[in-house]
Amino acid sequence: MTKYVYKFAEGDKDMKDLLGGKGANLAEMTKLGLPVPPGFTITTDACRAYLNTGEVPDTLDVEVTAAIRGVEDAMGKTLGNADDPLLVSVRSGAKFSMPGMMETVLNIGLNDNSVLGLAKQSDNERFAWDSYRRLIQMFGKTVMDIDGDLFADELHGLQQKKGYKGDLDMTTEDLKELVVTYKEIVKRETGKDFPQDPREQMDMAVEAVFRSWNTDRARIYRRRERIPNDLGTAVNVQTMVFGNMGLDSGTGVCFTRDPSTGHSGVYGDYLQNAQGEDVVAGIRNTLSLADLENLDKKSYDELREIMSKLETHYRDMCDIEFTIQKGRLWMLQTRVGKRTASAAFRIAEQLVNERLITKDEAVTRVSGDQLTSLLFPQFDKKAEKKLISKGMPASPGAAVGEIVMNNEQAVERTQAGATVILVRRETNPDDLQGMVVAAGVLTARGGKTSHAAVVARGMGRCAVVGAEDLVVDEAAGTVYVKSKDATYHAGDVIAIDGATGEIFEGRVPVADSAVMTYISKGFDAAMEAAGDDADVVELVTAVDHILTRADQKARLVVRANADNPEDAQRSREFGAKGVGLCRTEHMFLGDRRKLIEAVILADSDDEREAAYDALMPLQKGDFVGIFGAMDGLPVTVRLIDPPLHEFLPDLTELSVELAVKEAKGETVTNQEKKLLAAVKANHEANPMLGLRGIRLGLKMPGLIKLQVRAIAEAYVELRKQGKDPKPEIMIPLIGSVREMQIARDMALEVLKDVEDESGMKVDLPIGNMIELPRAAITAGRIAVESNFFSFGTNDLTQTTWGFSRDDVEAAFFNDYYDYGIFGTSPFESIDWRGVGALVRRAAENGRQANPDLHLGVCGEHGGDPQSIHFFHWVGLDYVSCSPFRVPVARLEAGRAAIANESEAAAEENGGSSVNATA
Amino acid sequence: MTKYVYKFAEGDKDMKDLLGGKGANLAEMTKLGLPVPPGFTITTDACRAYLNTGEVPDTLDVEVTAAIRGVEDAMGKTLGNADDPLLVSVRSGAKFSMPGMMETVLNIGLNDNSVLGLAKQSDNERFAWDSYRRLIQMFGKTVMDIDGDLFADELHGLQQKKGYKGDLDMTTEDLKELVVTYKEIVKRETGKDFPQDPREQMDMAVEAVFRSWNTDRARIYRRRERIPNDLGTAVNVQTMVFGNMGLDSGTGVCFTRDPSTGHSGVYGDYLQNAQGEDVVAGIRNTLSLADLENLDKKSYDELREIMSKLETHYRDMCDIEFTIQKGRLWMLQTRVGKRTASAAFRIAEQLVNERLITKDEAVTRVSGDQLTSLLFPQFDKKAEKKLISKGMPASPGAAVGEIVMNNEQAVERTQAGATVILVRRETNPDDLQGMVVAAGVLTARGGKTSHAAVVARGMGRCAVVGAEDLVVDEAAGTVYVKSKDATYHAGDVIAIDGATGEIFEGRVPVADSAVMTYISKGFDAAMEAAGDDADVVELVTAVDHILTRADQKARLVVRANADNPEDAQRSREFGAKGVGLCRTEHMFLGDRRKLIEAVILADSDDEREAAYDALMPLQKGDFVGIFGAMDGLPVTVRLIDPPLHEFLPDLTELSVELAVKEAKGETVTNQEKKLLAAVKANHEANPMLGLRGIRLGLKMPGLIKLQVRAIAEAYVELRKQGKDPKPEIMIPLIGSVREMQIARDMALEVLKDVEDESGMKVDLPIGNMIELPRAAITAGRIAVESNFFSFGTNDLTQTTWGFSRDDVEAAFFNDYYDYGIFGTSPFESIDWRGVGALVRRAAENGRQANPDLHLGVCGEHGGDPQSIHFFHWVGLDYVSCSPFRVPVARLEAGRAAIANESEAAAEENGGSSVNATA
Repeated sequence: MTKYVYKFAEGDKDMKDLLGGKGANLAEMTKLGLPVPPGFTITTDACRAYLNTGEVPDTLDVEVTAAIRGVEDAMGKTLGNADDPLLVSVRSGAKFSMPGMMETVLNIGLNDNSVLGLAKQSDNERFAWDSYRRLIQMFGKTVMDIDGDLFADELHGLQQKKGYKGDLDMTTEDLKELVVTYKEIVKRETGKDFPQDPREQMDMAVEAVFRSWNTDRARIYRRRERIPNDLGTAVNVQTMVFGNMGLDSGTGVCFTRDPSTGHSGVYGDYLQNAQGEDVVAGIRNTLSLADLENLDKKSYDELREIMSKLETHYRDMCDIEFTIQKGRLWMLQTRVGKRTASAAFRIAEQLVNERLITKDEAVTRVSGDQLTSLLFPQFDKKAEKKLISKGMPASPGAAVGEIVMNNEQAVERTQAGATVILVRRETNPDDLQGMVVAAGVLTARGGKTSHAAVVARGMGRCAVVGAEDLVVDEAAGTVYVKSKDATYHAGDVIAIDGATGEIFEGRVPVADSAVMTYISKGFDAAMEAAGDDADVVELVTAVDHILTRADQKARLVVRANADNPEDAQRSREFGAKGVGLCRTEHMFLGDRRKLIEAVILADSDDEREAAYDALMPLQKGDFVGIFGAMDGLPVTVRLIDPPLHEFLPDLTELSVELAVKEAKGETVTNQEKKLLAAVKANHEANPMLGLRGIRLGLKMPGLIKLQVRAIAEAYVELRKQGKDPKPEIMIPLIGSVREMQIARDMALEVLKDVEDESGMKVDLPIGNMIELPRAAITAGRIAVESNFFSFGTNDLTQTTWGFSRDDVEAAFFNDYYDYGIFGTSPFESIDWRGVGALVRRAAENGRQANPDLHLGVCGEHGGDPQSIHFFHWVGLDYVSCSPFRVPVARLEAGRAAIANESEAAAEENGGSSVNATA
Repeated sequence: MTKYVYKFAEGDKDMKDLLGGKGANLAEMTKLGLPVPPGFTITTDACRAYLNTGEVPDTLDVEVTAAIRGVEDAMGKTLGNADDPLLVSVRSGAKFSMPGMMETVLNIGLNDNSVLGLAKQSDNERFAWDSYRRLIQMFGKTVMDIDGDLFADELHGLQQKKGYKGDLDMTTEDLKELVVTYKEIVKRETGKDFPQDPREQMDMAVEAVFRSWNTDRARIYRRRERIPNDLGTAVNVQTMVFGNMGLDSGTGVCFTRDPSTGHSGVYGDYLQNAQGEDVVAGIRNTLSLADLENLDKKSYDELREIMSKLETHYRDMCDIEFTIQKGRLWMLQTRVGKRTASAAFRIAEQLVNERLITKDEAVTRVSGDQLTSLLFPQFDKKAEKKLISKGMPASPGAAVGEIVMNNEQAVERTQAGATVILVRRETNPDDLQGMVVAAGVLTARGGKTSHAAVVARGMGRCAVVGAEDLVVDEAAGTVYVKSKDATYHAGDVIAIDGATGEIFEGRVPVADSAVMTYISKGFDAAMEAAGDDADVVELVTAVDHILTRADQKARLVVRANADNPEDAQRSREFGAKGVGLCRTEHMFLGDRRKLIEAVILADSDDEREAAYDALMPLQKGDFVGIFGAMDGLPVTVRLIDPPLHEFLPDLTELSVELAVKEAKGETVTNQEKKLLAAVKANHEANPMLGLRGIRLGLKMPGLIKLQVRAIAEAYVELRKQGKDPKPEIMIPLIGSVREMQIARDMALEVLKDVEDESGMKVDLPIGNMIELPRAAITAGRIAVESNFFSFGTNDLTQTTWGFSRDDVEAAFFNDYYDYGIFGTSPFESIDWRGVGALVRRAAENGRQANPDLHLGVCGEHGGDPQSIHFFHWVGLDYVSCSPFRVPVARLEAGRAAIANESEAAAEENGGSSVNATA
């Protein structure tokens, strides 16, 4: 039989899955012998059972009876007693904190009888009746689903009628009258009496908390916070204690040390004669916690002792809630305190310095997401800003600059010394040049995974996308803002915040990131820039220590995705140990597009060869640059991958253009006709699944040979200069071992030729992408012909799910979040149940067949913290991510290694990832 | 150490993988004690090793030495001996017969010395020298790669010079002179002497046979015959015997019974004083085998005894080659005799009648492909035909009719009593009506898996596709034949042969298929039609007996894919036990397209609901028809699957149309603009991987509800009529258990509503397609929420390989065959290493999670013999195929069950399928 109820004394802090965060910590404190008001926790299992069936589990009733008896015994009080009643609170408490999202009911146990007992015990009749009317009001609204305004209106009506200024003016008689009125409202609205049976109150409250898991606001919150929908909440039933029983009572919150620096000290607030809610509501000015020493030295000393005990126990800065009822201290909650990103690093550093935690633990106390947020410049918080509109935050950072609307303007203005923001309806690969020189990118169309968003994130460039309020007219050079009926022009200065999606007018001041200075220029440069600012010095020192430790512990090597020498150079500065993905298709855009067009349109082998010959020196130059920038480190070059039509005009656009020409009686040239015919011939219904990758290579072996030769000749040239280039040749879209055999043989033949010509050994690793399910399934066969696998998890996600990323994210991913099908997009964090299972299988089978096989990942997942832990767990050798993500990946690689040092931890990490899609 | 050489006495007939067909059967005969000239077989392992490394395996040499010594001892002759030399033949022999595709070298062992010995022994100097010059000629060409014409020119030159009419006029001296000349040619062309060492001759010949596995013609043959490229050939080295040593010598071929009926009797030919090659070449008239009794009673009796022995041993009609050398009978080859499709059935029936084989064995003696070929009408072979052009044979059969070029003409002319052939540039779903009424379909574009081909095969409609020689101009009503510069018009009569791709002019006479009459109208009707034709009576009886037995033994149930009552009815006649796939998208074409357009274009929920309401009675009517036709049998209805834009106009066409209108100054209406906007909004880069299937259903739950309600109401209506409808609801494109949960809940809610309205229990199975890799990988989870899985192996192949079928087959599959990446298209026969592995895993995990889970397949593979055996092996419950394939599937399901009755056989069948793609 499943156990659904745990007394506080039965649990501990590691039982968050079952007891929720609050319940687990209450149990832990109880176990430590701290003064916790007695109570018990109803498990998340019970909640899930309720949500699945619509009924509480059969056996819960009995368990609750036993638990409540225990509480009554411990307190020497009974529920509903007319002399000395037990009152309890019923509170939600999920695994992950969801503040304010779910329900709480206080003062359960009050009824027409026990209100008299409370009056006696508190020696305060007014307090007792006020508590009772509060219960009916809260219970009516939360549990019985009555419109809360009905109660509030009566309250205010009564105050108005009597000329009161507020609650405090109300007399005991007023409150008694309100109780009568409130009970009438309950009867009228629900047809039922307000329940007088305390147990019935409690059971109803518990169900209400269960139900509150699935309110809209809770669901929306979980989606935003990546909390799975199927966890459910635990419910804590706990003896009420009152901080509002007079001046010897009060309530407070505190931290065991400075929450922003980690330095020792007393940090907290205290409010006399008040309940916890009052502190949160900020209705009166709070005292500093230090003041408590004067008010109630006994409680203060006890609290300080408890704080010290908790910190030693949790070995981290804790956040505490307490109440003093008539001079007696009660602990209501504790947890490891939340903190900002910079505080997380500084506290970890401080705890190491105090020898409270190890250097390894310090690494686990911070996260890649926190590091990311420290890398970006931010708008000065104090500056005045004029909001123009909002889009989707697509790539963090803050950028200010002149509006430019195409590559030419972008280049021209930056060459003239201006900082620019590229504003486009949407972007495509041809806009790359503009994106490279711009400080930020703003588009009117597209989602978080549109071209603009993905490329900007890859470059660490600030971006706001899908600002549908904007009408971008490149020809007119204007950006029209619909909601404001305002027009901005090219040259006007705007500012965009990639973390919020906000778009501002004018030159908003931006503050630099000290951590970015450290990452890109090194410790000394960052220290010099920090000057006297002790906070910054501490932060940079902490980041340096933690990142260094992470690098020492990491088993996964971090490489970067880079297609040009600049990116290669930058990623190297960021700590990348090589290039894991050098795409070559970008090298055929711009001026070279014509040459690829010539390859496609060639009428004869000679014409095609001529185009190859023209491309050859250019391609070789590309590789000399990149291999040189990564001298001594590996560079994995992926041979050309996309379908040919990506190098040709769009079918619809060209068809319309020529048809209109014809309709207007203008001449359509033979060249234009030929181009249209080629576009039609190369058009594909589903290009993602068409003639590309190795398929294209086998159809046009000249392309493979051209690229392999360029790689080999670049290698030879650099070697002759005394350098140490380490190129690796990667074949895309392999689905079978035979394709790999053929491609490998073709490549080996070219390498042999270059060896013969140069008299230099050219022995380069040849491997392949694993980006098709069939490649993953037959990896054991392919591995025999391959030196390395690089998992292309973007494409593997597309084919495994049958998702065309371009199409599906905008079309229905939002619905899928709502339906609870995804917690996170599988393109963002690897779907370990589906795609991950293929990666794992392929890695295992590949290694078994070829023990020397080198394994890496080059999808965007390579820079995602969750995914990096998964890749560590399945035993890959490296991850490759965009240059900007390299520091994050380094940190997470270290964290993964530390977290996985015990096998049990490994299972946990692999098996409970957040991206547990259905 | 791998054993590369088997003496004939060491092998047996089941070792075809290793010894090839010829070698295995020579071994078997040797084991039986028949007079086989001694020899040995070099294994396919040796060949594969040679092909992989370019060198014969190290240990082969030694093994061959031992084997050849054994032969010398057995014959009392030695290689190269000047008195009594041993001569051997070196012949290829692969697992599957590839007649004439690979090399053979005879008379190995002759040199300047041993030619004298042969002369002595044969007492025929001319014969010896003729044999020698033949060796040099054959060896030079085959082994040493010398242009064969060089030898032939010398031979003819000499004959011309001397005024000879042919070879027989040549004297011994002429032949001696030729030997000298031939040896000079060898020296001149290769720089080397003709090898005098017999062992060197033999080794070189063996290597030449190995190499001949990979000649172009051999590769092309294998591709056509679906023989894997990586099998390699064995090589048989065997003592030469000569049938041309005088009138007491000769050679013959024979069958152990009538090869077309299976009736007992003596069937064969004999040629006195001749070699095997002479029989094949047909240079002299052969005698009937019966004549041998008079010529050489002893040999005749011995042969008859051997024939009887072989037949009892092989338990099948055998085909035999023998030679008599100076009155001594030698067996050169035997194998189970090849036969036509109708002979296969009749022989199997005859052997059962003679109690030589069991009824089960009879089922294994025929194949689905043979049955298929018996189902189609064929052109009268004797009729005169005028060939117009040729396309690709896409769906077998023979059809004659008037050219029609669209649906309207097709319907109009068939209603007027004409038979028609639908001729289109290519077809799309809108042409369905025309295809239904036409006798055949002919297209100028598209491959074997184009829409026309797939749909025609599905309907059992004759089709020729991709006849690129034709220019189809629907507007002009003409079909222009480029190669002939001829034009045909709508109304002209043509004939197409779906088995050859030929297109003829005029009314070519067609013969009916008796087997088709049996299948569709039953045994009695077929017998009546057969009348006095004993051959036909025997054939129909045989098919009836075998198919009945197959049905008894089959574990796989056969269902049909049918979208309308007519198809359901027909498949039922063909023996289908239900509908495994009832697609619903076809139901929204034609007149109803407007209603779906209204759903898509709806501005409000009300408008959309109105469109649903209008569709509801129509959809219900569809289901009433189909469920009624399949009364008592299950009908699996797949909810709507394709992306919405399939119901809208094409983006490019509409864009051009409206742009041209505008360019011409004509008005583009708001409705047109709205339509274009909708087309753009619904346009997808990769629709295959976009918003379709369950994704569409979750986006527009009204669609799911409409369809489920129509199914449920149709069920209720038929039940109220006292019928027994058995609909099953199938959700397409499921990728995760959560999608299935949601869809199932939606469907259950509707079923509950219909129950409440009708007062009748509506408890219908709800299952899903497994057509995405992720569904297969997570099948264990999905199975918990599903009553059945239907494997959509078409889509599963597309996603597993990353192949868009529309794009890739034409674009590069031919290259892939050439490269040896595929033996067969994975769309034709299931790719068991990749796609099949997913099917197997999903079936196993699904059943484990839900033991009641029902498993079927509804892709085209459901009608493919190879694939059916695989599906049996992985334990599916049913296959569903096009109605026309039902009889074939029934037969193969029975064959699979019989073949798999022993576990060993099961492993063999699953593991050695022909579709072993790399």
